[in-house]
Amino acid sequence: MSLTESGSEPGTLVLPADLKFNADGLIPAVIYEADTKEVLMVAWMDKTALEKTIETKTTWFYSRSRQKYWNKGETSGNTQHVREIYYDCDGDVLLVIVNQAGSGACHTGERTCFFRRLL
Amino acid sequence: MSLTESGSEPGTLVLPADLKFNADGLIPAVIYEADTKEVLMVAWMDKTALEKTIETKTTWFYSRSRQKYWNKGETSGNTQHVREIYYDCDGDVLLVIVNQAGSGACHTGERTCFFRRLL
Repeated sequence: MSLTESGSEPGTLVLPADLKFNADGLIPAVIYEADTKEVLMVAWMDKTALEKTIETKTTWFYSRSRQKYWNKGETSGNTQHVREIYYDCDGDVLLVIVNQAGSGACHTGERTCFFRRLL
Repeated sequence: MSLTESGSEPGTLVLPADLKFNADGLIPAVIYEADTKEVLMVAWMDKTALEKTIETKTTWFYSRSRQKYWNKGETSGNTQHVREIYYDCDGDVLLVIVNQAGSGACHTGERTCFFRRLL
């Protein structure tokens, strides 16, 4: 679907037809740091958040609890600069390759959200 | 919850109290290759699948469409040997560090499920 069709800014963006959003219109996005090769976080995008991510080359997510879009690092400065995006064989997960600016991705101050070990 | 409490084999396993499963009792697990540092796939675990993963040190998932547990690589031989497991700051995503055996993680024959580029 182009941005024009989705009612956003005019553009030529076409998302893959076999990309699957769940019943709530969301798809999980794994955020991966290109240089350190770490998984930084996982958050949810809807179609609009994905389009904004592609347009701005920074990550946009949709918060289910707050029911609003958020641009990662907008207030903290810990922006994620998008380099590449992949989607999986089932078309229902995104892998977003970024360069993480600032101190890290996690709101706790940790570099990655996966700082607690279970096993 | 210990394995005894959950009705499985007796054991001493205690999952973190702040681990959050969704309304369907599931949590997404990002599978990451320890040596190649690649994200291989994302699949869903419920509490039992996570306990089986920890017990057997191979990945177990719950298939929503087939409504059954599956042990990755059981038929293909492309087993995932679990080295470490982390959970994120919100307690609602798992990061499972594995060594992938065989040709790869994807049922298509690709090494990683994220072989299609969107951007």
